[in-house]
Amino acid sequence: QTLGQWLLIITLSHPEPQFIEKYFPQVLDHFNYNSLGNGTFAQHFFVSLDQYWRKNYGPIFFYTGNEGDIWDFALNTGFLTELAAVQGALVIFAEHRFYGKSLPFGQESFNIPQIGLLTVEQALADYAVMVTELKKELGAQKCPVIVFGGSYGGMLSVYMRIRYPNIVAGALAASAPILSTAGMGDTRQFFWDVTADYENYNPACKDTVREAFQKLQTLAEQEDYTHIQSAFSLCKTPSSPKDIHQLNGFLRNAFTLLAMLDYPYSTTFITALPAFPVKVVCDTLLNGTDVLSALRDAVGIVYNATGEQTCYNLYSLYVECADPTGCGLGLNSLAWDYQACTEIEMCFESNNVTDMFPPMPFTQRMREDYCAKRWAVVPRPGWLRTQYWGDALLTASNIIFSNGDLDPWANGGIRKSLSPSLIAINIPEGAHHLDLRASNTADPSSVVKARQREAELIAQWVKTSREKMF
Amino acid sequence: QTLGQWLLIITLSHPEPQFIEKYFPQVLDHFNYNSLGNGTFAQHFFVSLDQYWRKNYGPIFFYTGNEGDIWDFALNTGFLTELAAVQGALVIFAEHRFYGKSLPFGQESFNIPQIGLLTVEQALADYAVMVTELKKELGAQKCPVIVFGGSYGGMLSVYMRIRYPNIVAGALAASAPILSTAGMGDTRQFFWDVTADYENYNPACKDTVREAFQKLQTLAEQEDYTHIQSAFSLCKTPSSPKDIHQLNGFLRNAFTLLAMLDYPYSTTFITALPAFPVKVVCDTLLNGTDVLSALRDAVGIVYNATGEQTCYNLYSLYVECADPTGCGLGLNSLAWDYQACTEIEMCFESNNVTDMFPPMPFTQRMREDYCAKRWAVVPRPGWLRTQYWGDALLTASNIIFSNGDLDPWANGGIRKSLSPSLIAINIPEGAHHLDLRASNTADPSSVVKARQREAELIAQWVKTSREKMF
Repeated sequence: QTLGQWLLIITLSHPEPQFIEKYFPQVLDHFNYNSLGNGTFAQHFFVSLDQYWRKNYGPIFFYTGNEGDIWDFALNTGFLTELAAVQGALVIFAEHRFYGKSLPFGQESFNIPQIGLLTVEQALADYAVMVTELKKELGAQKCPVIVFGGSYGGMLSVYMRIRYPNIVAGALAASAPILSTAGMGDTRQFFWDVTADYENYNPACKDTVREAFQKLQTLAEQEDYTHIQSAFSLCKTPSSPKDIHQLNGFLRNAFTLLAMLDYPYSTTFITALPAFPVKVVCDTLLNGTDVLSALRDAVGIVYNATGEQTCYNLYSLYVECADPTGCGLGLNSLAWDYQACTEIEMCFESNNVTDMFPPMPFTQRMREDYCAKRWAVVPRPGWLRTQYWGDALLTASNIIFSNGDLDPWANGGIRKSLSPSLIAINIPEGAHHLDLRASNTADPSSVVKARQREAELIAQWVKTSREKMF
Repeated sequence: QTLGQWLLIITLSHPEPQFIEKYFPQVLDHFNYNSLGNGTFAQHFFVSLDQYWRKNYGPIFFYTGNEGDIWDFALNTGFLTELAAVQGALVIFAEHRFYGKSLPFGQESFNIPQIGLLTVEQALADYAVMVTELKKELGAQKCPVIVFGGSYGGMLSVYMRIRYPNIVAGALAASAPILSTAGMGDTRQFFWDVTADYENYNPACKDTVREAFQKLQTLAEQEDYTHIQSAFSLCKTPSSPKDIHQLNGFLRNAFTLLAMLDYPYSTTFITALPAFPVKVVCDTLLNGTDVLSALRDAVGIVYNATGEQTCYNLYSLYVECADPTGCGLGLNSLAWDYQACTEIEMCFESNNVTDMFPPMPFTQRMREDYCAKRWAVVPRPGWLRTQYWGDALLTASNIIFSNGDLDPWANGGIRKSLSPSLIAINIPEGAHHLDLRASNTADPSSVVKARQREAELIAQWVKTSREKMF
């Protein structure tokens, strides 16, 4: 049997990973001994212990939690537990500070200055300290550590390997846009690639979206707000260009999410979605009688999955923030907004030329203005590139950069191998970190192959790391 | 002519390096966007510009300033300018925050919580940001950067290369005790090796020192304080075990400094010293009539170089702090004490068994108590090892660890090459970072050879780095 088949068998026989829920007493401020962070907070994590682990010998698979409740990631990262079963590993899912239950100051965590302790550096130091301590506690000092992460979590995995190679033997960074979030690349790329997903399914789909946005624009210019309200089933009548801007963002965000989460089976990751949602939304659009209501029904796949919404409240379903790809929908938008205002740069624009959306610029200047008002901070463009090397990664090793061609984040990451140990794996039929998900009978062969390669490389890193230690 | 001869010729023809004094607007707090450090401070540095530089092509030699006024290091690191002249480099001496003129909050810098912005991480980020900006300003984007440092500055050079290989192509770390200051190794090593220097010159020297300390101890037990005052020319009569403890520290510190600064010619680095000061102090000790006054005259080489002191004020000439190797004498003791209370671990003891000094323990517990009282901080043993890899350096490259066998710090550093690009250079006749000093006719051949090898390796790194860029 191939590894792919093995993984599938294991998945089907272990539908729910068995984790123990724990809290780690974490240093509040790793970088200032005299700050308000003089003490510790309870950092939430899950550990698999003896479910799969070859005790005191097998590797540690450590998921570097990203912007959300860690349990959501644990439930949607089945590849880790499948691989742990095959390779006898201990699995840890660690929650990122300021998300989920890991709020250092409870409900006051999002106040100024408390929120100041939310940085990439603090999060990495959390993971470094946590894994060092847990290894001691578990008698696992000689067990190689492999880090895993998807999206921003994948960025953190890359950073862990380049920052703490003394602790981490290798990293699987799935869909990690380490370049675009460091201000490198084309600011048009993201929404261009979102558009491409719809165009690739059917060019008419893209044309219909553009036509619908055009029609909305015309109605807005005519200030025909009641028409807009009824066409889009809005709870409140829009009354200003600001409301129209919000509506455009709300609509664009639905297409963004569907492109990211275009999985070949139904999922419940950020929201409940059908299989192949890009196909579903395009079919809805192309089968509609008028383009406006077709557009409404299309975005209903995201915003009205349960069919319970009788009308859309624009400002609660979508939150505009320093991340133009969206801050809402179950992700902790406050903390992520703060990160987008400080270290993570996402000045992505839509322009209706290279993409199908209305022109919605988001310049560094606009980011500065917003962030000063919202969080009293000044972003520092270039910092992430200085701090985490940008594309100057040649001195690093043992990192897999996996990306799915369907994922609009993919081209913001590493798409070509940089060296024999800095390996890009591209998955033609893959959406946002599909490879990290549990095996599924609907998986395309490209992701099965990708997981197989990843498993082989990780086993190799573990072996080499062990040889160096003994 | 050999490189050594070249260097000597250049030195003699350039007795004073020609530097331009500048200030860089530096980010106050790299790791918190909402702290009191919301702004910039003026970071002091010196730059050589066109004195030696092959403009827009030659490398940048960047001295990572350590615990003191940067000009003192510039004056005592002549090898850098000599090498710059040969290799067509631009030289930058950057001052460490909280030292010299780089006080972020002026005289209030040493208050709590302002002092909290003094960390190794902030200092490294300062250098990373500064060199990135200066390269842009100077049109030097394609000029490889090599970092240099001695002692704690050498530690910073190692850290710069492992932390920012995207910015730094290689590091010469002279006398950098990266292991002993990270809590790795034997806490007895430091004063053991100080003792060895005196023993190696003449075993009778060590015996005399021990005898003198024994005699002092006997007088102290008899509370014969007036005898002690006259024997050591103290300004005030000691009156308690605390004063005797201070006297012991004052005396031990003189031997420490002379061992570190045992150069083959007279120097004025931390204090004015004669050539071969260990020899001088031993000769003084062995030629004295009684051991107590001999000991006094011996430490006078450190504390009374100018002969102007008529008596010794124990508490002003030596300051006890969290660094048992001494906080006083021209080094900015407040800031260094803070660093020794937070990240830099120096729990070194003398015990009169493995060394010639009175037993003076300094445990982590004693450090904790002192640091809580003095700075309201709790040290975190193990942090430096987690953060800067300890001896798990195998994934790094392009670092020279040079050490002099006379230097008591040497065995706290890397003494054996770890790989073809992690190279230990040991200098049998060398004291504390002798290789960084300007060439001198009195130099032993071992340091001439060491500099030659260093120059070759650095030229190679520059060449390789340039090939990768173009």
